[in-house]
Amino acid sequence: MADFELHPRLAADTLELGDGMLSAVRIMNDRRFPWLILVPRRAGLEALHRMERTDHLLLMQEITLLSRMLEDLFRPHRINVGALGNLVPQLHLHLVARREGDAAWPGPVWGNGVADPYSAGDPVLDSIRTAFAAL
Amino acid sequence: MADFELHPRLAADTLELGDGMLSAVRIMNDRRFPWLILVPRRAGLEALHRMERTDHLLLMQEITLLSRMLEDLFRPHRINVGALGNLVPQLHLHLVARREGDAAWPGPVWGNGVADPYSAGDPVLDSIRTAFAAL
Repeated sequence: MADFELHPRLAADTLELGDGMLSAVRIMNDRRFPWLILVPRRAGLEALHRMERTDHLLLMQEITLLSRMLEDLFRPHRINVGALGNLVPQLHLHLVARREGDAAWPGPVWGNGVADPYSAGDPVLDSIRTAFAAL
Repeated sequence: MADFELHPRLAADTLELGDGMLSAVRIMNDRRFPWLILVPRRAGLEALHRMERTDHLLLMQEITLLSRMLEDLFRPHRINVGALGNLVPQLHLHLVARREGDAAWPGPVWGNGVADPYSAGDPVLDSIRTAFAAL
């Protein structure tokens, strides 16, 4: 099987953050929402229900760690978790810190409006990078 | 801690299917999409990242089994998985069999249009109940 490669659409829509035990972790380039993308580094993987059980545990650990990180940073009302893949078949998980009154509240972020990209040096980006490096 | 009780909004929006190892499994009462709801039977639980590790494994097993069941029944293009909870705080997972050209494709089902309830004896309901009973 070929090596894992990030889908070009995901690469274009997100900023690099770093690697977890299982996943490439990215930041959605949309400053309207603190929004992480987890992409398990398994070539050809397209669905949660086609993962190995050991990878399921790793993924849930990553979701737990990163959700707590988002809670500590942003004090959100909810963390939305989703695996959709209607547009990009490569399995990727969304973790979105949601606040009452945010640009999509209480609806889903997916398909809502147009992304508002970060500027370099945005303090939110910096805070995410600093917290991730300390995990 | 009090006993597990299904949130009244979930009870109102869904039809009973049965119990998995961890979750009460329900059918969203919306015939536009084959759509299951998994509600872990843990009183007071509101977030994926507050589950015990053993429950994480059970949940992933349920997601895997039920996703395969939906695939066998409906041959969907994708299974969308989501835990949002912006409206109902009790932790519940959505498993939605998506087809190209369905009423929300390629957008998310959440917040899309108005539910179209099943009639009693709908063959889709029967097929889901029969497949679930055989798991």
